[in-house]
Amino acid sequence: MLRVHPKKVKLDPSVDLRIIASRTPGMVGADLANLVNEAALLAARRGAQQVAESDLEEATDRVMLGLEKKSRVMTSDEKQRVAYHEAGHAVTAISLPHADPVHRVSIIPRTQGALGHMLQLPTQERYLMTKPQPEDQICVMLGGRGAEYLVYDGVVSTGASDDLQRATEVARQMATRFGMSERLGNMTYGLPPNQRFLKVLSGIEERDYSDRTAELIDEEVRHLIDSLYERVKKILEERGPALERIVKGLMEKETLDESELKALLNLDHVPASTLAARA
Amino acid sequence: MLRVHPKKVKLDPSVDLRIIASRTPGMVGADLANLVNEAALLAARRGAQQVAESDLEEATDRVMLGLEKKSRVMTSDEKQRVAYHEAGHAVTAISLPHADPVHRVSIIPRTQGALGHMLQLPTQERYLMTKPQPEDQICVMLGGRGAEYLVYDGVVSTGASDDLQRATEVARQMATRFGMSERLGNMTYGLPPNQRFLKVLSGIEERDYSDRTAELIDEEVRHLIDSLYERVKKILEERGPALERIVKGLMEKETLDESELKALLNLDHVPASTLAARA
Amino acid sequence: MLRVHPKKVKLDPSVDLRIIASRTPGMVGADLANLVNEAALLAARRGAQQVAESDLEEATDRVMLGLEKKSRVMTSDEKQRVAYHEAGHAVTAISLPHADPVHRVSIIPRTQGALGHMLQLPTQERYLMTKPQPEDQICVMLGGRGAEYLVYDGVVSTGASDDLQRATEVARQMATRFGMSERLGNMTYGLPPNQRFLKVLSGIEERDYSDRTAELIDEEVRHLIDSLYERVKKILEERGPALERIVKGLMEKETLDESELKALLNLDHVPASTLAARA
Amino acid sequence: MLRVHPKKVKLDPSVDLRIIASRTPGMVGADLANLVNEAALLAARRGAQQVAESDLEEATDRVMLGLEKKSRVMTSDEKQRVAYHEAGHAVTAISLPHADPVHRVSIIPRTQGALGHMLQLPTQERYLMTKPQPEDQICVMLGGRGAEYLVYDGVVSTGASDDLQRATEVARQMATRFGMSERLGNMTYGLPPNQRFLKVLSGIEERDYSDRTAELIDEEVRHLIDSLYERVKKILEERGPALERIVKGLMEKETLDESELKALLNLDHVPASTLAARA
Amino acid sequence: MLRVHPKKVKLDPSVDLRIIASRTPGMVGADLANLVNEAALLAARRGAQQVAESDLEEATDRVMLGLEKKSRVMTSDEKQRVAYHEAGHAVTAISLPHADPVHRVSIIPRTQGALGHMLQLPTQERYLMTKPQPEDQICVMLGGRGAEYLVYDGVVSTGASDDLQRATEVARQMATRFGMSERLGNMTYGLPPNQRFLKVLSGIEERDYSDRTAELIDEEVRHLIDSLYERVKKILEERGPALERIVKGLMEKETLDESELKALLNLDHVPASTLAARA
Amino acid sequence: MLRVHPKKVKLDPSVDLRIIASRTPGMVGADLANLVNEAALLAARRGAQQVAESDLEEATDRVMLGLEKKSRVMTSDEKQRVAYHEAGHAVTAISLPHADPVHRVSIIPRTQGALGHMLQLPTQERYLMTKPQPEDQICVMLGGRGAEYLVYDGVVSTGASDDLQRATEVARQMATRFGMSERLGNMTYGLPPNQRFLKVLSGIEERDYSDRTAELIDEEVRHLIDSLYERVKKILEERGPALERIVKGLMEKETLDESELKALLNLDHVPASTLAARA
Repeated sequence: MLRVHPKKVKLDPSVDLRIIASRTPGMVGADLANLVNEAALLAARRGAQQVAESDLEEATDRVMLGLEKKSRVMTSDEKQRVAYHEAGHAVTAISLPHADPVHRVSIIPRTQGALGHMLQLPTQERYLMTKPQPEDQICVMLGGRGAEYLVYDGVVSTGASDDLQRATEVARQMATRFGMSERLGNMTYGLPPNQRFLKVLSGIEERDYSDRTAELIDEEVRHLIDSLYERVKKILEERGPALERIVKGLMEKETLDESELKALLNLDHVPASTLAARA
Repeated sequence: MLRVHPKKVKLDPSVDLRIIASRTPGMVGADLANLVNEAALLAARRGAQQVAESDLEEATDRVMLGLEKKSRVMTSDEKQRVAYHEAGHAVTAISLPHADPVHRVSIIPRTQGALGHMLQLPTQERYLMTKPQPEDQICVMLGGRGAEYLVYDGVVSTGASDDLQRATEVARQMATRFGMSERLGNMTYGLPPNQRFLKVLSGIEERDYSDRTAELIDEEVRHLIDSLYERVKKILEERGPALERIVKGLMEKETLDESELKALLNLDHVPASTLAARA
Repeated sequence: MLRVHPKKVKLDPSVDLRIIASRTPGMVGADLANLVNEAALLAARRGAQQVAESDLEEATDRVMLGLEKKSRVMTSDEKQRVAYHEAGHAVTAISLPHADPVHRVSIIPRTQGALGHMLQLPTQERYLMTKPQPEDQICVMLGGRGAEYLVYDGVVSTGASDDLQRATEVARQMATRFGMSERLGNMTYGLPPNQRFLKVLSGIEERDYSDRTAELIDEEVRHLIDSLYERVKKILEERGPALERIVKGLMEKETLDESELKALLNLDHVPASTLAARA
Repeated sequence: MLRVHPKKVKLDPSVDLRIIASRTPGMVGADLANLVNEAALLAARRGAQQVAESDLEEATDRVMLGLEKKSRVMTSDEKQRVAYHEAGHAVTAISLPHADPVHRVSIIPRTQGALGHMLQLPTQERYLMTKPQPEDQICVMLGGRGAEYLVYDGVVSTGASDDLQRATEVARQMATRFGMSERLGNMTYGLPPNQRFLKVLSGIEERDYSDRTAELIDEEVRHLIDSLYERVKKILEERGPALERIVKGLMEKETLDESELKALLNLDHVPASTLAARA
Repeated sequence: MLRVHPKKVKLDPSVDLRIIASRTPGMVGADLANLVNEAALLAARRGAQQVAESDLEEATDRVMLGLEKKSRVMTSDEKQRVAYHEAGHAVTAISLPHADPVHRVSIIPRTQGALGHMLQLPTQERYLMTKPQPEDQICVMLGGRGAEYLVYDGVVSTGASDDLQRATEVARQMATRFGMSERLGNMTYGLPPNQRFLKVLSGIEERDYSDRTAELIDEEVRHLIDSLYERVKKILEERGPALERIVKGLMEKETLDESELKALLNLDHVPASTLAARA
Repeated sequence: MLRVHPKKVKLDPSVDLRIIASRTPGMVGADLANLVNEAALLAARRGAQQVAESDLEEATDRVMLGLEKKSRVMTSDEKQRVAYHEAGHAVTAISLPHADPVHRVSIIPRTQGALGHMLQLPTQERYLMTKPQPEDQICVMLGGRGAEYLVYDGVVSTGASDDLQRATEVARQMATRFGMSERLGNMTYGLPPNQRFLKVLSGIEERDYSDRTAELIDEEVRHLIDSLYERVKKILEERGPALERIVKGLMEKETLDESELKALLNLDHVPASTLAARA
């Protein structure tokens, strides 16, 4: 098979194709074509007219690393961590009075790269949000990280990165756009998003305040995140059994919809607003 | 119905259209076409030639969230909050000697996204504004937030964001362009708006002062906003009955024009300048 | 009349044109055409095929606000304030030894938006300016604000914004380009205007000094403006009668030329350099 | 005359051309054409079809200010100040051992806008400059300001702006590019000029050091300028008679060349290096 | 040979080609053509019509420096240092429980410029990384520098530059994107990579935090790198014999694959997770 | 001669060409053509149709300054300084164990503007540099400035500017890219050069650290330069006789190659690594 492809690219006469072949036992035709193309590219990059053995060797390393990636499944350790993460989101959402109801929890990876998801369906779109609502949103976002922290004894994972990013954005908006921080008062800081877009096109700084004010904003955002994370951890500690039941359900069925969650937790409606009344 | 659309896009043979159909009970033809297109898009994005069941599932989530948004009405809770917000603007405007007269208050949402509005009609255009006028403008802008704060016991909403933005802009102009702050003196800071526009095109910083001066400006803007907000809250506390009467009127009629306001408040002219003489 | 225009745009059948007509009593044909166009635009923006009643209502608000603006005259209060402002410029110019002679004072608004003006005609162009000359220029610029401050008991107006901007620019140049500040010494700061222009095109920062130096510059500019403003207020306090006589003249004739000013103030030449010798 | 021009532009019937004519006694045909064009432009700018009287009035102001500028000569006061300024440059150059010899001093304005000039002709181009040479260059640049300061009792003029700018640049280069400051050491700061040019095109900051280092550079440049200015003042105080003799010569002949300077100062060679040996 | 090429470019008649020839003993035709072209270029740059001897001399210097570069082999000192560097990576990877297994170590330079490499093949792709994993990644990256430091008594080399860059990036991400620093909390700092890309195109600053927060981030990144480097040094000190055995193997065979490494170290599986359990 | 050229450009009738001719005694045809062109350009710039006498005068000044520049030789003072500078580089290179051997020293100016050069030929290209190597590179770069400092009693020249720039760059890279500073640790600061190039195109800041960290980097770079400069001065003080012998050789022969240097210094191989073992 391997013979076929090199005809289009010049191989250095010293290259022994059998050695390459012996090192790529699992490869089929398309893989090998890919390998030789990669090698030709490497040769071209170093200005050579012929593909040398070293090019093929390096190309082999690259292709093998690529192949490795395609044919994989999650380990059960990873699956369990994803289950705790998503269950953490779900339990937090269920426990908070201003969070939208949970529609589905799943540990089936999505095509876009998410390893699992927890879907809330708002009972209706909101035009206004009162202060407790973005706070509860942040809590739900931090619920995944919180569950990992508690269950894995502080050994957190990179899986929370998007959640932290979104929680930071909401907290920042509360402080700088919605006047929801006592220390920052009833005013806005920086340009609103749409004006900022114009600035993006022209390269102007979006900040219209001093570095001292930037510090205040940082402190407020941090304080908000910290105190809400404490609340999340308290909720998850109190509702450990619910967390465990959801994780067990997820490990069995991979996806739990609203009615399955209700059944698991013995709830009439998923949102149980008695617990975790806001401090 | 569902059968029709997938003909144009290749469906993975394993997809069971009946399951999808059962999950989308309320959908009509156009909705389903939309759903399948969305799924085809998702499939294309992940480089697939055929639409898989997971694509349809995810598309369903998206379309359902979208449908939800279109067919909604405000809850009576939201309506009431909007009424207090707009009434807060109105009562503040009525109570301040340099605010323009109130022409209409309404809690009918506008197409541009505002949930309500309070319209002032200036008795005449002003070419000059004396210091109390932008101060009273800021007060009127803060009146919506102030009413929500008092009535809902400090639980404020995102509805004031535009008001806060505009109040901040006016306060900033008082301090940096109009020489209306003792601590900043009779000079201007930064470039005037028209020169700034040129800068926007070329990406140059608009600031021509030190960070320490930026701090001073921040402090002055904040101080102005804070003290005017205190005044707003005092006005609204003293004029609670007027606020309540306007809210009641709005909940009944949704819109109150100038004469209806006068009737409600037993006023000859809407502006009652006796109260809230400037401290 | 109103019937004519909507033929070109589709009206929602439910729209009652008579109601619209009753709300726009003063409008003539062209105004109504304008109104319907505005409504059609609003409908188009929200993606609708037909103009709804709400579009016409909102358009009516907009058109009415616009009409209001076109047909206005200054109130006599505004006129008086403008008169004091311009007279403040004039009296300061007359009282300072290095200010150019006053050619005309007027409270007739110019097409460019100025509500009045005070025109100085230099006896000859200057190639050099000695330190007292830009100082007196700044004083003349601050004279309008100073007069308003004294006469209206500290209640200043936005009318001084351009004056403050220009005074700030001159003070800044004294400090950073002309070596006229002891604390900043015989050197220049930042790039000269022509080099700065190039930078504007390329987006580079114009500052070549530290933030501490920027603070020093800010302090010097502020100090210069503050001390010259004190001088302006002292001049205007001492020359109250001259100020009043010019205001009275302006309220009567709207414009006073050089000879009329001389007659009013019993001066042979307008510049009376005895007073206000520089401290 | 005035009648001719308005035919091309529509005049408002109410305009009384005789009044305009009476206000522009010294104008000839071309001036009037200019005036009417200016007025037509102003009318066009405000969207009018006809030129109103106010347009003509404002145009008259503008044209008169322009005429004024064209027909002027320097006052003898200004001439004297320019003479002291240039003589200050010359005396400093003559007194310093590393300054180039003086080739000519003149108070005839150049077409490029300079009011006078002092021309040094290097005995030969230098490829290297040792530390005393840029120091003496800075002194010569500061000599004009120094002479004005001493003669006019501290009342300095804007005429030194270019000198200060160039002195600042040389001092900055000594500190940041030539390792000639003890406190800044044997290294360079920021990008060299040619690399900086590239940055100008791409908008990147040229600074690669901290704000604290920027402060150090500012202090060093300031310190260098200050100490050299002290030296300049001492030289000029000691050589007062030479200064006076050159000024007298300039007021009589306007330009003094090398041999005339020698004759005036009883020097064989212009550079007299005995005085002002470097401290 | 040399005669041929100069025909196309004009040589100054005074140039003695024999002298040039005598100074370039090892050159062949193509090298000489190159030399003369280089000289013609230099002549053109200084605006000359003919190539002067100085041009040829300078071109000779340049070409000789270039030739030198092409024909070189690594010294055995360099080879040994590279061997210790790569062995340092390998021993660290072998000793850490969360590092991927070592697939190959080599001191054969790659065409891309790397002087050696250590290749880890993940047993499977990871979707999630728990905190110990990026920590161990950083340790492996620092293993090369650590081995050089210990073996060469603190005399480190430039060879670690890429490793340090990547270690810094991972540490920074742990602190700013993954919420893995106690002092920075469960939030993100700055824009995520994809949004940052947009900013790169438009020239906007990516930082949305204060300088004080930037300091905190710097301190955390530094602290993480420092403490992990201490761990690396401890591992390498304890596993000195393994390091020496690998270096000896590399000096003999240049490349060691997984099985050869196992044989050298008497390991069944390369990863020996008993040692260096995380502190 | 002079008559010929002005025909193409209009001369003001009042211009007396004989006066111009008498002021330009040494000029030949081409020079005069140049002069008149320059004057025509100046006239055009000020918008005139004819060349006035003042244009010719100013053009004469400019052309004379230009002529002066072309026909010059270095003074023997300058030559000597250049000789000490290059000898300083050479002696430092000879004395340091990790510096490349000296191939040639010369005080013949190069076409690119260098007044002399010292050429090192590496015995072989280096792929790795250990810490002492960039340190010794910096020392060699500082050797020119060091020699000038010692011989001319602290009166340094601008000739070291490029050396200082390159020394700063190497020191900066040691600190920020190679982890060779204890205080900055085993990490990198800012973007690596190739990524920085991209940023140059898009105008983004290259700094990803706080101002406090920028201070630390500045301090480290400064400290490195300072301590290496001390070492350079000690070397040059100890090896004064070698310095003097090389300078004497350069003043006689202008260029010394490797064998001539060896002969002068009684060395078998130029690099004498016994002295100046690293402290």
